Amino acid sequence: MRRPLVTLTTDFGDADWYVGALRGAILSVGTGIAIADITHNVPRHDVDAGAFAVCAAARAFPANTVHCVVVDPGVGSARTALAVRAGDSYFVGPDNGVLSPAISERAPHPQDVVAVALEPERVTSEPLSATFHGRDLFAPAAARLALGEDLVTLGRRVTEWVTLPTWASEPAERGRIAARIVHVDSVGNVVTNVRVAGAPYLTWRPPEGGAVRVRTSYASVADGEALLIPGSAGYVEIAVRNGSAASRWGLTRGSMVYFEVTSEGRHGS
Amino acid sequence: MRRPLVTLTTDFGDADWYVGALRGAILSVGTGIAIADITHNVPRHDVDAGAFAVCAAARAFPANTVHCVVVDPGVGSARTALAVRAGDSYFVGPDNGVLSPAISERAPHPQDVVAVALEPERVTSEPLSATFHGRDLFAPAAARLALGEDLVTLGRRVTEWVTLPTWASEPAERGRIAARIVHVDSVGNVVTNVRVAGAPYLTWRPPEGGAVRVRTSYASVADGEALLIPGSAGYVEIAVRNGSAASRWGLTRGSMVYFEVTSEGRHGS
Amino acid sequence: MRRPLVTLTTDFGDADWYVGALRGAILSVGTGIAIADITHNVPRHDVDAGAFAVCAAARAFPANTVHCVVVDPGVGSARTALAVRAGDSYFVGPDNGVLSPAISERAPHPQDVVAVALEPERVTSEPLSATFHGRDLFAPAAARLALGEDLVTLGRRVTEWVTLPTWASEPAERGRIAARIVHVDSVGNVVTNVRVAGAPYLTWRPPEGGAVRVRTSYASVADGEALLIPGSAGYVEIAVRNGSAASRWGLTRGSMVYFEVTSEGRHGS
Repeated sequence: MRRPLVTLTTDFGDADWYVGALRGAILSVGTGIAIADITHNVPRHDVDAGAFAVCAAARAFPANTVHCVVVDPGVGSARTALAVRAGDSYFVGPDNGVLSPAISERAPHPQDVVAVALEPERVTSEPLSATFHGRDLFAPAAARLALGEDLVTLGRRVTEWVTLPTWASEPAERGRIAARIVHVDSVGNVVTNVRVAGAPYLTWRPPEGGAVRVRTSYASVADGEALLIPGSAGYVEIAVRNGSAASRWGLTRGSMVYFEVTSEGRHGS
Repeated sequence: MRRPLVTLTTDFGDADWYVGALRGAILSVGTGIAIADITHNVPRHDVDAGAFAVCAAARAFPANTVHCVVVDPGVGSARTALAVRAGDSYFVGPDNGVLSPAISERAPHPQDVVAVALEPERVTSEPLSATFHGRDLFAPAAARLALGEDLVTLGRRVTEWVTLPTWASEPAERGRIAARIVHVDSVGNVVTNVRVAGAPYLTWRPPEGGAVRVRTSYASVADGEALLIPGSAGYVEIAVRNGSAASRWGLTRGSMVYFEVTSEGRHGS
Repeated sequence: MRRPLVTLTTDFGDADWYVGALRGAILSVGTGIAIADITHNVPRHDVDAGAFAVCAAARAFPANTVHCVVVDPGVGSARTALAVRAGDSYFVGPDNGVLSPAISERAPHPQDVVAVALEPERVTSEPLSATFHGRDLFAPAAARLALGEDLVTLGRRVTEWVTLPTWASEPAERGRIAARIVHVDSVGNVVTNVRVAGAPYLTWRPPEGGAVRVRTSYASVADGEALLIPGSAGYVEIAVRNGSAASRWGLTRGSMVYFEVTSEGRHGS
């Protein structure tokens, strides 16, 4: 039997009572709901980092999972609260872009997305606090979606939402992809917004010359040598075996790199 | 169907195996019990901080939740181990005051509280270790309460328990409330022991003069301006928009502040 | 009714999305599986520390729990992936020794152990990533075992696996036990590989002379005095009341200490 499932991604940290209150708010809607943490250590107010975490982890979850994301620097302002069905998954969080990469990843075709702006009075009978919409709005909305409630009963349909400039894809040119760096991990691997699906035939030419090609494992190159790798988050990464690609080339989140695309026939030339 | 639910609040930190063992001890009583962490990062042996965390988070949980709190500097000494029903909730932990604010919050009327001193041999057939009563006593007691076992089968009735001086309420004077500071959060908001219910008509006069009044959101005041706010923990807070009330006025946990009470009719005068 | 149960012990930390992806991979096999974290803060690549954490916590869990351990410096190399039934528990992780103390603890007799080398194509229909076997192999294998799948369907039987030198037991001499230090905790208590069962009649003679004997609680000795204590992990510990045994005698993980064994009759002589 399928059990309702809500994941949590926040910038609340592990030290305070706030995440506990989110869990309580979810379990108050239904004690049978399973709660799975993605992380609560998104850097405070870092919308891009929260967006990457939920996008990368969501792929591992089963259909009908509801991902509740609370990285919400605008709490108390007029920003909209969103609930979205994207492909076989649901997302709930503030309309500040934090959901947008995951929405695109789960539903590459816009017609597979249904979104509403949450209306608090349709979600909960309790008054909303001024400062803790995670507990008072996002968590109950996520819990109700997990229990099977229809998305459109929770708010009014919207067809636009904030997207993150970091993740914007550039128009493809002949033989060349403009990739954006969406994440740099703790060891200096550089994650781009290019999906792994197209990765086998890419080449990156670093400023000092040479060609960095796609490999299937770190072990394929020598220590200190660079490679492109189909990353476990589902995106192409620039990496250095036992080193930091980010610091070697000064690559930071938001900056761009360019990959050459080789057709399958010419691969390895 | 209702699922049995135990929350955990400890000062064990996230680095060791101790919290894992608590979870195992609960699930050994019943694999169907849901476990929800409030936090495991209460500062070590900080009974006041643990008391605040569970008190603030407990409000978000459904009826019949069992809150297990292990902040226990006196483990191995003669301190009593408590299990308490307070209103619609249960609390299990050492009798050092860590449960007392939550008990009062859930059951403002003492007749709604039933408490027992846990007797280990009535809780578990295993021998108690000298150093880990969380795993050997508190967790199994919490699990058994969650499964519906009657509180009074686990120990002997008691009618008194340790309360925290920090939370003691002062006799109300005409037009004036003596409030204690029970918590200072990570951004310097100062949480008092005054319930939000009476908040709309309070004024605080800071030492330098002026009047700080209750607002419903940070956005109601300018940057750097002070306000009283009905906090998300359920208590009145002194805050500064994008600043620290604690450092501006040197307010620390345990110290007192005085609020003027305005009757509803005279509000805003 | 028994609920399937998987524990997680990793060195992934709490900041990234990796643990979230493990949880997703488990719940994708079955949303009804309960997941209990032991810790995700094993120091990076510290196989000994991971081994101690899961060994110490596993004793608290019920029969049929599956312990999934991902401390895997060799991911991507040729190291084997193991799934093991040891007594009434299951263990899944890399064959680098991280499972071995827990296996020995749960199944002191080797005939109570059944082990297989996981064959990815028998565990999952998805392709294995180069860098994240925790999500792609260990988690799904653990989930399938939790749901009752037969161990031997997931790989080929093996009869040997890597064991940790730190935990190797020395042949007993008459009246003397050579103990290894397997863990030093955060306050400087020194955990040995000697089981608590034989502890009542041990004496340790520190280099400066004197005799340190087994006590049942810290309160039995004065501040700053040393004791042997039956530790909550199930092993004999050298401790100093309100002090650090590790720093007083320079005791580190992997080094040896020698206990004298007194027969029961002569105890205390």
